[in-house]
Amino acid sequence: MPPKAAARPQAPTAGAPRLSVVGVGLMGASLAAALKAAGFVSHVRGCDENPAALRHARDHGLIDQGVSSLREAADADIVVLATPVGPLPDLLAQLKAYVRPATVITDLGSVKGPVARAAEDLGLTRCVPGHPIAGAERTGPGAARVDLFRGRTVVLTPFPGLEAAAQDLVRALWEAVGARVIVTSPDEHDRALAQTSHLPHLLAFACAEHLAQPGTGPALAPFVGTGLRDFLRIAGSDPVIWRDIFAANAAFLAPALRAYGTMLAAYGRALDEGDWAGLEARLGAAQAYHDCLMKEAGDGNR
Amino acid sequence: MPPKAAARPQAPTAGAPRLSVVGVGLMGASLAAALKAAGFVSHVRGCDENPAALRHARDHGLIDQGVSSLREAADADIVVLATPVGPLPDLLAQLKAYVRPATVITDLGSVKGPVARAAEDLGLTRCVPGHPIAGAERTGPGAARVDLFRGRTVVLTPFPGLEAAAQDLVRALWEAVGARVIVTSPDEHDRALAQTSHLPHLLAFACAEHLAQPGTGPALAPFVGTGLRDFLRIAGSDPVIWRDIFAANAAFLAPALRAYGTMLAAYGRALDEGDWAGLEARLGAAQAYHDCLMKEAGDGNR
Repeated sequence: MPPKAAARPQAPTAGAPRLSVVGVGLMGASLAAALKAAGFVSHVRGCDENPAALRHARDHGLIDQGVSSLREAADADIVVLATPVGPLPDLLAQLKAYVRPATVITDLGSVKGPVARAAEDLGLTRCVPGHPIAGAERTGPGAARVDLFRGRTVVLTPFPGLEAAAQDLVRALWEAVGARVIVTSPDEHDRALAQTSHLPHLLAFACAEHLAQPGTGPALAPFVGTGLRDFLRIAGSDPVIWRDIFAANAAFLAPALRAYGTMLAAYGRALDEGDWAGLEARLGAAQAYHDCLMKEAGDGNR
Repeated sequence: MPPKAAARPQAPTAGAPRLSVVGVGLMGASLAAALKAAGFVSHVRGCDENPAALRHARDHGLIDQGVSSLREAADADIVVLATPVGPLPDLLAQLKAYVRPATVITDLGSVKGPVARAAEDLGLTRCVPGHPIAGAERTGPGAARVDLFRGRTVVLTPFPGLEAAAQDLVRALWEAVGARVIVTSPDEHDRALAQTSHLPHLLAFACAEHLAQPGTGPALAPFVGTGLRDFLRIAGSDPVIWRDIFAANAAFLAPALRAYGTMLAAYGRALDEGDWAGLEARLGAAQAYHDCLMKEAGDGNR
């Protein structure tokens, strides 16, 4: 079992930066606890609208102090935005009024174009858009784990004008908690994640809704095997978080969905026409790519 | 770790039936080993075209004897057909010429209509169509496990004229290896499994083939997370086995796929029109059904 997040009595490095985490859910609380455990930060403020989340995080030593306003959160050397994707551009606009020029900002959002564009438009040249490819079925600070990011890939997506020193600090932050950092453009990230994450989530949600239809929904439980269980697992994800992600990445997700629909129609034709040789060739190609992709991905991000 | 299949020195019950398993892959070898371990059978013949599979199964004590002809396999009190779905009706027709009238036949196929119809048409009133909802990513007797069926659901799908004593024996066989037996009609089984297993497999295969397309395939590996890994896992399944299943159940799978396509088109419209409230409602309904279905399924079949 992976260790649950908990305070570890480790003295921070002298002069270590003060951290604020905005959004004390699974991701924010795990990062706060991991950075405290690594001694990378000297003092951690958590900022959340939910007093219970702040209390839990403080009582379990995941953060040092709970604050409720963005103005208070802005008083730090590093501000991590760990909220759902939707509010991120607005939060950046608000933060700009509060942060000192030296403060480095980063985020954990699953879609990077809107964040990078907002930071560039706002002239936030020390705001480093980032996305850790990590997560879990559970949500909230109660599910936080100090090792959530260990061995995971974190994608940083700089925009023109981003200060190199800020990017270096955010890279060091992620490496301190055991993550592997890669750098790409916001569009390249969003195009890839539309395929590897957002499309599969949409397909799983649609499959769960399909199974719930009259004539299919009732009485399916005895016929559920491990295949369906794993395939559908991501349909248990938070609807608001994923509405935000789908909306923020609609420009790349919609064409991916159309292309998938075309692929699915070809499978349907093979079924209707009894083209079993053609179907077998498709399944063989699919299995070969599956095995190749998973082999190449290795044990990364799990 | 679950125990791998291995010979256990357990004396069979006096007068225990002699078993033949046709197809010594993961499923057949696991069942043979589990029935030997339970002392439910006195002597186990394995029948397979692949001499290496037979040798492995015999050397590891999963079976007592390897035979290569269906005629030899038919000389038993119980014959279990553990082949892919496609050949099952033909195998039943061949078996009919060899088996003694008292011999009970059953199978492990994932589609039950073709087996039940063949048995009924052939007058094989002691042939009990069955389907254990179990499996694993790996194949072959080397992946066999004595506990593969423990806690799993096995569906028996009788047809008019099936002898009750035969069904009782097959029920006892499955209960001896720790499975839970339910009984339904072949059509009801095939309609449900089209939704809970065959459609998800087809969607995962299609997603893997989609991801392999030029412009999407290359360089996706760094962006693979646990969500995609679990969602796509069933696309690593054997193409020939699944071609057979899709072909055998096309009558129920094709309409399920069309209905899913309609659902997916609605998601696409929500994306195109920016209907985020509508999308959130869909995701909420999907998540609620996911959670409800998995709660009802409980720990069964995993």
